[in-house]
Amino acid sequence: MAQPIGRHFLQIPGPSNVPDRILRAMSAPTIDHRGPEFARLTLDILDAVKPVFGTTGPVIVYPSSGTGAWEAALVNTLSAGDRVVAFETGHFATLWSQMARRFGLQVDVVPGDWRHGADPDALAERLEADSGHAIKAVCVVHNETSTGALSRIPEIRRVLDEAGHPALLLVDTISSLGSVDYRHDEWGVDVTVSCSQKGLMLPPGLGFNAVSEKALRAHAAATLPRSYWDWAPILEANRTGFFHSTPATNLLYGLREALRMLDEEGLPAVFERHARHGEATRAAVRAWGLDVLCLDEREHSPVLTAVLLPEGHDADKVREVILERFNMSLGAGLGKLRGRVFRIGHLGHFNDVALAGTLAGVQMGLELAGLPPEGDGVTAALRVLTTGAAA
Amino acid sequence: MAQPIGRHFLQIPGPSNVPDRILRAMSAPTIDHRGPEFARLTLDILDAVKPVFGTTGPVIVYPSSGTGAWEAALVNTLSAGDRVVAFETGHFATLWSQMARRFGLQVDVVPGDWRHGADPDALAERLEADSGHAIKAVCVVHNETSTGALSRIPEIRRVLDEAGHPALLLVDTISSLGSVDYRHDEWGVDVTVSCSQKGLMLPPGLGFNAVSEKALRAHAAATLPRSYWDWAPILEANRTGFFHSTPATNLLYGLREALRMLDEEGLPAVFERHARHGEATRAAVRAWGLDVLCLDEREHSPVLTAVLLPEGHDADKVREVILERFNMSLGAGLGKLRGRVFRIGHLGHFNDVALAGTLAGVQMGLELAGLPPEGDGVTAALRVLTTGAAA
Amino acid sequence: MAQPIGRHFLQIPGPSNVPDRILRAMSAPTIDHRGPEFARLTLDILDAVKPVFGTTGPVIVYPSSGTGAWEAALVNTLSAGDRVVAFETGHFATLWSQMARRFGLQVDVVPGDWRHGADPDALAERLEADSGHAIKAVCVVHNETSTGALSRIPEIRRVLDEAGHPALLLVDTISSLGSVDYRHDEWGVDVTVSCSQKGLMLPPGLGFNAVSEKALRAHAAATLPRSYWDWAPILEANRTGFFHSTPATNLLYGLREALRMLDEEGLPAVFERHARHGEATRAAVRAWGLDVLCLDEREHSPVLTAVLLPEGHDADKVREVILERFNMSLGAGLGKLRGRVFRIGHLGHFNDVALAGTLAGVQMGLELAGLPPEGDGVTAALRVLTTGAAA
Amino acid sequence: MAQPIGRHFLQIPGPSNVPDRILRAMSAPTIDHRGPEFARLTLDILDAVKPVFGTTGPVIVYPSSGTGAWEAALVNTLSAGDRVVAFETGHFATLWSQMARRFGLQVDVVPGDWRHGADPDALAERLEADSGHAIKAVCVVHNETSTGALSRIPEIRRVLDEAGHPALLLVDTISSLGSVDYRHDEWGVDVTVSCSQKGLMLPPGLGFNAVSEKALRAHAAATLPRSYWDWAPILEANRTGFFHSTPATNLLYGLREALRMLDEEGLPAVFERHARHGEATRAAVRAWGLDVLCLDEREHSPVLTAVLLPEGHDADKVREVILERFNMSLGAGLGKLRGRVFRIGHLGHFNDVALAGTLAGVQMGLELAGLPPEGDGVTAALRVLTTGAAA
Repeated sequence: MAQPIGRHFLQIPGPSNVPDRILRAMSAPTIDHRGPEFARLTLDILDAVKPVFGTTGPVIVYPSSGTGAWEAALVNTLSAGDRVVAFETGHFATLWSQMARRFGLQVDVVPGDWRHGADPDALAERLEADSGHAIKAVCVVHNETSTGALSRIPEIRRVLDEAGHPALLLVDTISSLGSVDYRHDEWGVDVTVSCSQKGLMLPPGLGFNAVSEKALRAHAAATLPRSYWDWAPILEANRTGFFHSTPATNLLYGLREALRMLDEEGLPAVFERHARHGEATRAAVRAWGLDVLCLDEREHSPVLTAVLLPEGHDADKVREVILERFNMSLGAGLGKLRGRVFRIGHLGHFNDVALAGTLAGVQMGLELAGLPPEGDGVTAALRVLTTGAAA
Repeated sequence: MAQPIGRHFLQIPGPSNVPDRILRAMSAPTIDHRGPEFARLTLDILDAVKPVFGTTGPVIVYPSSGTGAWEAALVNTLSAGDRVVAFETGHFATLWSQMARRFGLQVDVVPGDWRHGADPDALAERLEADSGHAIKAVCVVHNETSTGALSRIPEIRRVLDEAGHPALLLVDTISSLGSVDYRHDEWGVDVTVSCSQKGLMLPPGLGFNAVSEKALRAHAAATLPRSYWDWAPILEANRTGFFHSTPATNLLYGLREALRMLDEEGLPAVFERHARHGEATRAAVRAWGLDVLCLDEREHSPVLTAVLLPEGHDADKVREVILERFNMSLGAGLGKLRGRVFRIGHLGHFNDVALAGTLAGVQMGLELAGLPPEGDGVTAALRVLTTGAAA
Repeated sequence: MAQPIGRHFLQIPGPSNVPDRILRAMSAPTIDHRGPEFARLTLDILDAVKPVFGTTGPVIVYPSSGTGAWEAALVNTLSAGDRVVAFETGHFATLWSQMARRFGLQVDVVPGDWRHGADPDALAERLEADSGHAIKAVCVVHNETSTGALSRIPEIRRVLDEAGHPALLLVDTISSLGSVDYRHDEWGVDVTVSCSQKGLMLPPGLGFNAVSEKALRAHAAATLPRSYWDWAPILEANRTGFFHSTPATNLLYGLREALRMLDEEGLPAVFERHARHGEATRAAVRAWGLDVLCLDEREHSPVLTAVLLPEGHDADKVREVILERFNMSLGAGLGKLRGRVFRIGHLGHFNDVALAGTLAGVQMGLELAGLPPEGDGVTAALRVLTTGAAA
Repeated sequence: MAQPIGRHFLQIPGPSNVPDRILRAMSAPTIDHRGPEFARLTLDILDAVKPVFGTTGPVIVYPSSGTGAWEAALVNTLSAGDRVVAFETGHFATLWSQMARRFGLQVDVVPGDWRHGADPDALAERLEADSGHAIKAVCVVHNETSTGALSRIPEIRRVLDEAGHPALLLVDTISSLGSVDYRHDEWGVDVTVSCSQKGLMLPPGLGFNAVSEKALRAHAAATLPRSYWDWAPILEANRTGFFHSTPATNLLYGLREALRMLDEEGLPAVFERHARHGEATRAAVRAWGLDVLCLDEREHSPVLTAVLLPEGHDADKVREVILERFNMSLGAGLGKLRGRVFRIGHLGHFNDVALAGTLAGVQMGLELAGLPPEGDGVTAALRVLTTGAAA
């Protein structure tokens, strides 16, 4: 029997459950984006968002999806024909590579099995072979939303440093920002790409670029055509609290509220909570006798868990049962994982009891969909939640 | 570590979790309560609310708490010195009796152990002894919110009928209306008392009286002073869609939305859902090795479950741990049950995964508060949820 | 042509236009009314509301309309058979007198022409004649919402003082509180009655009683039956931040926000703004060649202006034209003024341009309804707004 | 004295005043953008938006500002080096030309005085001279937001037709759509560019492209690099109700509500209302003795009126006085009009009394800023409003 009642559990790996505080903040009347009140709003936000990126440099906010922020990172720093290295960590990394090709970039993709993060050793090899510094940028997805594998950015950075290679480091933190410790400055990232609807707990509609000084220098030399995404006029207008094109005012209200919420909880507590929820979820998956898609213990995502089903089972059928029966959305397998995995989002505005409810819904759904779990995943998860380091 | 994060689980037995649909409906601008748009609103609501009470007669809506609606039931139908029979089913029944005494009524309270509903046999005895029909009213709390025992109103009615006794039947449905099958007309209830913040899923602020024709006749003869609560001018004004005193307009917006939601799910499905959640909750309590306060299988509340702790344990401590650690509110023991029980609300805008999360929170809280559960209550509850009649 | 478009102008003398800030505040999820967060809310509000009443004593908040707060003032302080003096200042004063009679009080009504406030001289006469102090209370409506006449409470107080008469002074500030300077303590008022939907800018649903120590002493001796309205258990529960019956939580959220808004603007500025808007409105009415109902310059309401039409014209027709054509609600003539006056509300969340729009709507409506104004009222009003003391 | 109280009047020419209905709709929880409920939302919107554009073809919705939608129109249809004709109708037309140059297009700008719409005769000359059909597109701003001049698109179309010229016709309806009659299909427009925050009454954050079949053919041949803006994958995903990149879900909720509101009022009534408000505003400006910037009677904007001040007066000073004193925002002069004009927005969710309030605020502000109006503009406007064709 369908049960579209009670509060929906939006357990896809983003958009995450938007807190009512943010929805209320967003429902304030739109104001003049050229007036003094707006300038105060902008300056507040642009300042408060920096710690979330781990930067003291500028962060640019676009009315766009995260896909737009990808494009911004490319067109602001590169020129047609430039060579870039990318990693096939999953569906989204693949999409980003394809986008780069559309702009005439030569993309050298490091192949992957969609069960690991970016491989630092493979990068080392490529950089070593590139004594002429033809590689202009390295693109990494920090948290691959399609697989639940977290790339180790500090190791990527170390490889670049050890090679003394000047390539830019472009990192997609679309599904990690605000949920996983991230350090734009410390890790020497040049452009950090992100968006609003994951760890920032907002509805979709904002894209971000955090940019290093090196990225700004690259911007000055880059020749891909750009206008909407061009950092320069935005940075110029931002200086006094404005935007050169009309900003998404009400989403900015929500962003201000989101930044307050992250600050109230404290970023370290936020990261610890996500880590604990990831651990509890994996405990559940293993108790059910199923496989976590990500294979490397160092790379498990605190944000989502992709669950690999045994051959012959349709993950979309499981999701459908859970949606209809328990009013809960899970993420589908994407690209070549379609039907093979479902993804449990455990990010954003979330807590232990909501996670317990989520895992209970999955456990019941597996049973109802004809995949009776081997063991009691919820119990295993509760054990992590009560005895974990966070207790 | 305190965790006031994520969405709060408001698992007290009312106010229940208000759906965001209702909160949004309530946030529409207040309109002229003497204008044509308001009249349409009133007429819609007064019509749509009837099936929830199981009546075709009038339902009166007050800006008040449920306590006010108790007072309205008394002052509209009784006169100083009148004798009424009441049942000591718990804290709220006791409060209602005390209120009746404040109005100079002679209240004959049938004693109770706070673990059962109203006793039809005890009523039969009293009616039999009252050949002179001195008893003017019988007051029953349908769902005793302090104990989780549901009184069997049809049996109370049968006792009255068999005795051929003309006493009015006044029933408090404060925590049952909209969650438990209830039939004002069929069961011959004269005044049904209710309020907004339980099964109707609204914030508190509205009180209700559904009234029978017999109650209206009693109203004509009753002499307790009344003005604010007087049914007559309200019924008169309601005829054209108005109120004789300013109504709580924005709560009425919420009520309209709540009635739509109940209608969309369908009352039978709503009742079945609550019954199933009560059953699952009791399965959890028993698996934990704890006692459900209510002792009669026929009287278990589908709305809340009061959990009795072993001697020497402080239920308020358990609640405190759960509030601080899991951002979930449970109901306290009231009156003589203070510290002995906690109450789990499972009513209103609720579903299986939210219940699972709730029970997981209680299970973890018991452990953290030094009452390690004997068995796995969540698992027991999930079994009910997946195999129950509702599946 | 009907034009139910754009933002509605709710220019009745209450409910006033609810600010979106308050509507948003009210749309936060309902919390546990017995939990620690609620206690903080209550204590904040009960403290912050005092300056609005001009008191340092307790203010009681009911889930009720203002009519309920009238009843509370009576049943808490008086006993059946008590004599009270009331003034026939208009429709609402008359309703309050009628209510008093329903509770068995002997009401001595000072007749009035509905175009003046309460007459201090008439009170002096009655008090002089009452050497035995049979009069237990004097009831005055501060701002008579049906006529737009403001009673001079300090003069009423002086008459009581000069007579050395111990009668309680009960004052209805339903439509003046938060809009007109009011001083419960300084003016020696014993019970101040008010509600949420006028100067406090909230939707309807809250009633208030501010009470003096003398009123509390009267409460101890008064014998009218009371329960819901009884101050004692509320004051007791309020001490720790709670209510003895479930409060209207979401309206309390709104009240907190309203008190913040009044504090931000500053009460003196709020009062000055209302005074200026009253003056501008009367300038418009006179320019139109119509009569302001209130005849005494000292008693013009800063909150609303009742406009008296020449014989042979139907004020309800004017209101209907304005509602249909301009999406603006005006107040109807009430009681014996039905059809003779319409009332313009200029209170609460309001500013100069909104007032100008309001008066423009009335001016156009008069013309369309066949009462072409003699002169240009809007221009006259703008002159007051630009040159007034407030500039 | 500053008066930041009461409801803000946002009388800039967009963002316009967002109706509370739309803000409430937008505050619903974000849903899974890959789930069945989302597909229904998308299909509803994509269907309902067509009549507003006057098209039966596809409309593409971006998470972007209107500036992004400009870029989309260019990169989807043109190739580097292509020649386009543009008109210097004002600030925004100039910005669009500059953007085109950034993409390597050769832009032939028809000079203008910023007081007229696009000149059909000048286009005729250019087309005549272009026998080789080097011109690939003609770019016109329908309603120039910086000047209040409306270009006559049907005449532009006729010129193209009479010349038998195959150039694409790209039209910016950013500030006209949903306020002014517009017919994408009938007028043979190839790409109509628009956004959310003007006549559609939404907050900013959505950009639109309505596209003709000819535009789709041009898309197939165009070689400017494109990815985010590429129509093809969006049209493909839209077919089943989805987007290829995460859409701005909550703004789409608002769009659905906006389309309902436009449908309820009826587009012809919406257009007539805007026309009437434009006429009333110009009557006010002339009564004040000031100049309407737009000089051609056929080209007056129904959406905004730019008011040219006499030499020696600073329009920004007037705006500042009005903002501080009357809590009303007006539009600044842009580009070479900075300080010379202010712009009154009278679009979107608006009605006669709000317009009267707006004009009263301007009139008072002019006086307070040292530009005492010659005559009574409000009175002149009210005359139009009561006697206009709309009565």
